[in-house]
Amino acid sequence: MYDLTIIGYGPGGYEASLLALRKNLKIAIVEESKLGGNCLNRACIPTKYYWTGAKFLEKLEIFNNYGILIEKKGIDFYKAFEKKNEAIKYLRKSLRQLLKSKKVNLFKGRGKIIDKNKVLVIDKDGNEEIIETKNILIATGSKPISIGNLKLDNNYIVSTDYLLEKMDSLPSSILIVGGGVAGCELGYILKSYGVDVYIVELKDRLLPSKDTSKDISKYLIRKFKKLGIKTYLNTTVEDYEIRDSKVLVKLSNGENLEVDKILLSVGRAPNTSDIDEIGIIKDERRFIKVDEYMRTNYENIYACGDVVNSPMLAYTSSLEGKVAVKNIIGENVKIDYGYIPYAIFSAYEISYIGLNEETAKEKNIEIVSGLYSYSFNEKAVDEGETDGFIKLFFNKENKKFVGGYILGASASELIHLLEVALKEGYTAEDLHHLTYFHPSISEIIPFASYDIAEGKLF
Amino acid sequence: MYDLTIIGYGPGGYEASLLALRKNLKIAIVEESKLGGNCLNRACIPTKYYWTGAKFLEKLEIFNNYGILIEKKGIDFYKAFEKKNEAIKYLRKSLRQLLKSKKVNLFKGRGKIIDKNKVLVIDKDGNEEIIETKNILIATGSKPISIGNLKLDNNYIVSTDYLLEKMDSLPSSILIVGGGVAGCELGYILKSYGVDVYIVELKDRLLPSKDTSKDISKYLIRKFKKLGIKTYLNTTVEDYEIRDSKVLVKLSNGENLEVDKILLSVGRAPNTSDIDEIGIIKDERRFIKVDEYMRTNYENIYACGDVVNSPMLAYTSSLEGKVAVKNIIGENVKIDYGYIPYAIFSAYEISYIGLNEETAKEKNIEIVSGLYSYSFNEKAVDEGETDGFIKLFFNKENKKFVGGYILGASASELIHLLEVALKEGYTAEDLHHLTYFHPSISEIIPFASYDIAEGKLF
Repeated sequence: MYDLTIIGYGPGGYEASLLALRKNLKIAIVEESKLGGNCLNRACIPTKYYWTGAKFLEKLEIFNNYGILIEKKGIDFYKAFEKKNEAIKYLRKSLRQLLKSKKVNLFKGRGKIIDKNKVLVIDKDGNEEIIETKNILIATGSKPISIGNLKLDNNYIVSTDYLLEKMDSLPSSILIVGGGVAGCELGYILKSYGVDVYIVELKDRLLPSKDTSKDISKYLIRKFKKLGIKTYLNTTVEDYEIRDSKVLVKLSNGENLEVDKILLSVGRAPNTSDIDEIGIIKDERRFIKVDEYMRTNYENIYACGDVVNSPMLAYTSSLEGKVAVKNIIGENVKIDYGYIPYAIFSAYEISYIGLNEETAKEKNIEIVSGLYSYSFNEKAVDEGETDGFIKLFFNKENKKFVGGYILGASASELIHLLEVALKEGYTAEDLHHLTYFHPSISEIIPFASYDIAEGKLF
Repeated sequence: MYDLTIIGYGPGGYEASLLALRKNLKIAIVEESKLGGNCLNRACIPTKYYWTGAKFLEKLEIFNNYGILIEKKGIDFYKAFEKKNEAIKYLRKSLRQLLKSKKVNLFKGRGKIIDKNKVLVIDKDGNEEIIETKNILIATGSKPISIGNLKLDNNYIVSTDYLLEKMDSLPSSILIVGGGVAGCELGYILKSYGVDVYIVELKDRLLPSKDTSKDISKYLIRKFKKLGIKTYLNTTVEDYEIRDSKVLVKLSNGENLEVDKILLSVGRAPNTSDIDEIGIIKDERRFIKVDEYMRTNYENIYACGDVVNSPMLAYTSSLEGKVAVKNIIGENVKIDYGYIPYAIFSAYEISYIGLNEETAKEKNIEIVSGLYSYSFNEKAVDEGETDGFIKLFFNKENKKFVGGYILGASASELIHLLEVALKEGYTAEDLHHLTYFHPSISEIIPFASYDIAEGKLF
């Protein structure tokens, strides 16, 4: 009898296992595909790998400024694909080694809960095995969805999963349907590698989430324009056909496009079909219903990550997985997402946290803001990274920091300092008066809070 | 009559002026050389410029992993020198424009305090002008020193100032005397650009400061070895002579070297000679004595930066300058350096804060530590930045964070999160339980604190 059986070994299952092992639980892992889940194999990690390449390609343009003479000989995408796979394999191996060294039983197959204490594992050959377990954590993740008449075929119409895991050569042109995070990330990467990129987005802006400041979308679309990424807002794909190895697309605005591929990045659905025979309760969108303890309608069965209705992020999944484990060992801990830092790797490295102009208004919080450009930051000038901005929002009344965003180098790291500022209720003065190393990109923070902390300069 | 006359416009004078202008003081600036001081013109900023180039050269080796095919054609150091100058000129221009737009009088010349309310300015042609002023801030900085028989000649024996501001071609070999911060930074940069580098250090380690963990020195010297930088510890230059355009050096260990140049990086002395006729009190090393309000023995005369006996850092200078201004406007503020984050840009990007193994022992604080390698961090793997470490120290009794160091990508930015952790008295649990974006380099922090926060994995 295991203490805990984890079904699905992505970031949720992995972090849950790390904590469970520290707490000396006897655990079993069930995974039907590769260790590491979507995040490691076909989302976050390959995206940032290719994004690093895209940034390198951008950097090439300024190497000359540092006296480095080079000649560009072209792109070998297959090489990038292979080395991406190597990096991921290396990381997957470290997961495998962890399980081995802790003598954790890994069941390769599809897990199905057939009793509140029994998980049936069916491997790819149809062999069955039953795991007996005190507790279960469902962490089976999600998969990309199709929309309308666009059907994924792993050739002309592809998903982000396919593109990031399997695609070993570049199309010469691509239409990306969906200008959300994945669409904006992959659009930038593909363009950098020389692909003609078109993006269609149903809504009136890129990154159409209310937590994302409209300013971010504005800066990003301006940059896309400069890079030659063609963006269609308020637009959908009306029809398409495949002819002579090309996809002919008719857009809702009347324009016609001819591309090699269509990438669908319109969202993901939870992997909750056929995971149980015991009536675990799901909502109308098939997300598993959990309480604040990450418990399902069964006291000993928990769920985390993309299968529950919370932000579809690797790190919230990890948090949920750890909360589940804490409750399994009786610590009685409620989920608290705290302040979630967001980051997007597109033509800008983008990050944000807390409120923005729109969400502050919704909450009737009057704000004052501080803006600072990377072009005045000495470290950014040294690095040739002058194209960037930070905007910080403070409560007008008490000058407390309520949120902000960063577009530019190191944005995804710097955001954590802003997270702590939010958590600790820092005012503009508090943020301004920390000691910042000079020169550092971090100095954009004291400069963006200077006017509010010490009075205006202009 | 001015409210404040600032003598010297480096980071101390500059930040003091920014705050003084916000507080509507009528200010005058006296600067005999370039705006921006040593930091901008011949220290921090050119170092990080060249360091960016050195990192690019390192990155070239992994471009292939991202499918980017390039051929290296060589180095054109003069180009790097010119573009470095352009970057600095651009930053200097922004200082100039600030002064212009705020209609600040800039007196070009050497300032001398001839009365507690009078500064005599002598320009390079010998013209004199007297500024009448209510308050004075001395921020005249420092200059490199020579040691022993090694005399700076701006040709064979050069200072870091000369190397960073004036040197427009690379020597084929160089001996760096002094393995402190500047020596380790410039040694790495020059080696990356193809120079044969030798470093001699009197003490038994590189970066011989007790605030720098001995482990850092160990990792760094190991990396230097790998890069082919030859390091001599416990060694001095016994003698040298210049013959046939070469410097022949005899080391204290009996070895002889033949190099193109010697770089002296053995420290700096305050620029306090001939700055006043009114008996401003200096200590035996010629640092100006100030109280906690940054006041000299004259109530209306303040000093900040390298002329006072505090860490010779641009950002502590800025802090001191701002404290001086606050006291001038009657805010009665004592200097509080808080927790100073340190960063060094060498073969590793290095940062540290607070206590380390040695300083904790000195203070009789028993510590436990958490270590994590960049090689397990997914973002670092994506970026090809797996060579790095973080070590965090916690008070054994209460698990409070007391200090730590980072060697690796983004170290100089991540250190600020550790600064806030120190300031807020965070425990290992607090640090571990923040929400970290995945994948980010910042995740090395929760992983380095995991064992202490949640129990050991191994």
